[in-house]
Amino acid sequence: MNYTFSNKIASLKPSAIREILKAPATKDTISFAAGNPAPESFPVEDMARISASIYESSPISALQYGVTDGYEPLRAEIAKRQKEKFNIGKSIANGDSFDDTTVIVSGGQQGIELACKVFCNEGDAVICENPTFIGALNAFRSNGATPVGVTLEDDGMNIEELEGAIRNTPNAKLIYVIPTFQNPSGITTSYEKRVKIYELAKRYGLMILEDNPYGELRFAGEDIPTIKSMDSDGIVIYCSTFSKILSAGMRVGFVIAPDEVASKMVVSKQTSDVHTNLFFQMLCHRYMTECDIDGHIKDIQAIYRHKCTLMLECLEREMPRAVRFTRPEGGLFIWCTLPDGVDAMSYIKEATARNVRVVPGATFDSDTSVTSQSFRLNFSTPSDGQIIEGIKILGEIAREFGINS
Amino acid sequence: MNYTFSNKIASLKPSAIREILKAPATKDTISFAAGNPAPESFPVEDMARISASIYESSPISALQYGVTDGYEPLRAEIAKRQKEKFNIGKSIANGDSFDDTTVIVSGGQQGIELACKVFCNEGDAVICENPTFIGALNAFRSNGATPVGVTLEDDGMNIEELEGAIRNTPNAKLIYVIPTFQNPSGITTSYEKRVKIYELAKRYGLMILEDNPYGELRFAGEDIPTIKSMDSDGIVIYCSTFSKILSAGMRVGFVIAPDEVASKMVVSKQTSDVHTNLFFQMLCHRYMTECDIDGHIKDIQAIYRHKCTLMLECLEREMPRAVRFTRPEGGLFIWCTLPDGVDAMSYIKEATARNVRVVPGATFDSDTSVTSQSFRLNFSTPSDGQIIEGIKILGEIAREFGINS
Repeated sequence: MNYTFSNKIASLKPSAIREILKAPATKDTISFAAGNPAPESFPVEDMARISASIYESSPISALQYGVTDGYEPLRAEIAKRQKEKFNIGKSIANGDSFDDTTVIVSGGQQGIELACKVFCNEGDAVICENPTFIGALNAFRSNGATPVGVTLEDDGMNIEELEGAIRNTPNAKLIYVIPTFQNPSGITTSYEKRVKIYELAKRYGLMILEDNPYGELRFAGEDIPTIKSMDSDGIVIYCSTFSKILSAGMRVGFVIAPDEVASKMVVSKQTSDVHTNLFFQMLCHRYMTECDIDGHIKDIQAIYRHKCTLMLECLEREMPRAVRFTRPEGGLFIWCTLPDGVDAMSYIKEATARNVRVVPGATFDSDTSVTSQSFRLNFSTPSDGQIIEGIKILGEIAREFGINS
Repeated sequence: MNYTFSNKIASLKPSAIREILKAPATKDTISFAAGNPAPESFPVEDMARISASIYESSPISALQYGVTDGYEPLRAEIAKRQKEKFNIGKSIANGDSFDDTTVIVSGGQQGIELACKVFCNEGDAVICENPTFIGALNAFRSNGATPVGVTLEDDGMNIEELEGAIRNTPNAKLIYVIPTFQNPSGITTSYEKRVKIYELAKRYGLMILEDNPYGELRFAGEDIPTIKSMDSDGIVIYCSTFSKILSAGMRVGFVIAPDEVASKMVVSKQTSDVHTNLFFQMLCHRYMTECDIDGHIKDIQAIYRHKCTLMLECLEREMPRAVRFTRPEGGLFIWCTLPDGVDAMSYIKEATARNVRVVPGATFDSDTSVTSQSFRLNFSTPSDGQIIEGIKILGEIAREFGINS
C-alpha cells in the first residue's frame, strides 16, 4: 500500500543524525543525551500518599471525564502561585486591561502545539531562537508552519536579526522563546533583551510564545522577570509544566494566556485529547496545597547545582581550551562548541563508539540542512561518576581530534 | 487586542444550541446529556491496589519520561488480546502482507485527531456517518478538513450515497465510521455494509478510520466482525480506548494501524504530548494481566443492559407512538426522533426548563446549518429513578406539544 500522507507530516522525517545515535545502549553507556529530570527529584512518598488518599476520598471524580480547561482547584492554585511568586497573570478586577486564564495541558509540549495550531495556517512561520527545542520545531512543522531561526547570543537572540526576520517574514504569527535556561543552550536572555523582544512583538503585531519549563530550576544568579510578567497588551502565551518538579511521565503542564486566546486553545485541546489525566491533576493540586512545593524545588535546585558544577569543573579540567561551553545558572543543559575545522559529527560518532552519548547541535537547528560544531550535554540525569568518566572521555577524544589548546 | 486566529480554529465556535443548554444544573437536574460511563463501572479497588504497588515497585520508571508509542508491555498485551478476541492485527510473520502496530494514545479522541493530521491537508475532506460523534467532527474541522456526511440508516450508512459522496469528493482522505453502537445513534452497521464500506474504500483509495470505543459494551445480540478484522490491504486505522472499561479520566486509548501509518501517527503524537500518562499505562497493563478484565466487562454489560432496558421500557410506556427511538444492543446512547412538524428545539428547551437535559440532534450533524428532529439520550450515567422520572417528563412534554399518538 502506498500511503499519501499530509504535506506537514510527510516532511517530518526522523533525523539522519538521530538515527546514527540509535546505537544500542548497554549498562556501561554514559548518556548526556537525555532531557530527563533527575530521578531523585520526584517526591515519590508524597505522591504515593496523596494517590492513596484520592482513591479513598474521591475515586469516581478522579476517574470520570473532566472538563477540558482543567481541574478547577488546580487552575486556581497555579494562578495564585504564579501571580504571587512571578507576577504572572493579568486581571480586569485588578485594574489590568484584560484577563489571563490558566489552562491545564498534557505537558508543556501540548501548550506549544496548541498555540501553533490556534495561530498558524499551513504556510505560516514561527520566529524562534536558533538553536532551539526540537519538540517545538517539530510542533511548528507538524502544523505546516516554517521555523525561522534567529541567532542566539550569550544574552539571548540578536535583536537586530530578530527585527530583520520579522520584517522579512510577513506570514510570521508567533515569536517562540525559551528565555530562561534555554534548551539546548542553557542560555538565559537578559532583562534588556526581554524588553526589546516584547516591544518588537507589540510593534509588529506578533504573539510571543514564552516557554518556561526550567525557570524554577535556578541554582545561581538572580531571577529575571519573565516576558509574560511584562504583558500589559495581552500578547504573551506562557507555557510551563510540572515535569521538572513532580513527574515528567504524568504529563501535566499549564498555559497562562489572555482569555480570548486561552478559550481557542481549550477548543483545540478538546479535539486533541478531551482533557489531561484528571487523577494526576488532582494529585498536583493536593501536592501544591498540602506539601512544601517551594522547599521541594529548593532541594531540586541543590541537586542540579551540584551536578552542573561538577560537569563544569570536569569540562574545565578535561577539555582543551579551544572547546567552548556555556555556564548555565539553572536548567538541565550545557552547550559545547568545538573549534572550526574539527569534524563535529565524526567527533560525536567516536564518542558514541566509546559509549558516551551527546546530542548533535544540528538537531536543534531551525534549518535542517546545516551542520553544527556544537552538541548538547545534559547534567540532570547522569550520576556523579558518569559525569566524571564521560567528560574525561570527551576530553580525550578532543585531543585525539587534534584540539590541543 | 484583536487576535487573528488560524482559519481552522477561528471556524470552531461553541455551538449556539449548546449554549442554550448551558442552563445551570441543580441537584434535581436529570441529565441524559452526558456521555460518561457509569460511575459503578470503574474497578476502583483494583486500581487503588495496583497504583500502590507501582509506587512500591517501580516509582521512578512510572514517573519519568516514557516513549511516544507507549509502554511496551501494554502495547504487547493489547495486541495479543485484540488478536485473540477480535482477530485484529496483521503480521508478516503470520503470513499477512503487512504488519499492524499498536500505539498508545491519550484517549480515543487523540487517535482520531492524529489520523486526521497524518492524512489531511487543510482543505481536504473526511466522509462520515451523519449524524456522528461531535468530537470527531471537530477534530476534522480543527485540522482544516471538511466533514462530508452520509445518511445513517438503521443498519449503517446508505451505501449508494456513500459511493456518491466518494465520487463527488476527490479530496476526501478518510472514511470515518463508528460501526458498533454508534454515537449518537446507538446504531450498529450490519456485516454486509461493513464489507461494502471496506470494498469502496479499497476501490477508491481511501483510508478507513474505524472508531470503536463501545464495541465491548454489547449486552444483546451477536458480535459482528470489525472492519479492521477484514483489513487485508492495510487501509484501516482502528481506534479504541479503556475509557468505558477502566476509567475515562485517565485518558488511555490505543490505535492499531499499518506500521507505516502508525509510525507517522507516533511522530505526530510526539509533537502533541510526547507520550500518554505513563503511570496509568502501567496500571492498565497490570490490570490486564492481573485482574479478570473479561469478567469486569461482563459486569459492565449487565449494568448497561439493565439501564438500557429500563429506558426503553419507559420510552415505550411514556412516549406517544409517533416518537421514534433506536433499540441499541450495546453502548451508551438511544436516539429519539420527534415527528415532523414539531418544533424540536422548543421541545428540548422545555425539557431543559423542567430540569431534563438531552443533546439536540443538530449537534452531531456534519452540516452545522441544519435543524434536526432528533435528540440523544444517554442511559449509562443516570440512576434508575432518574431514568423513570426523566422519561416520564419527556413523554408529558411530547403530549403538550400535540403529539398524541
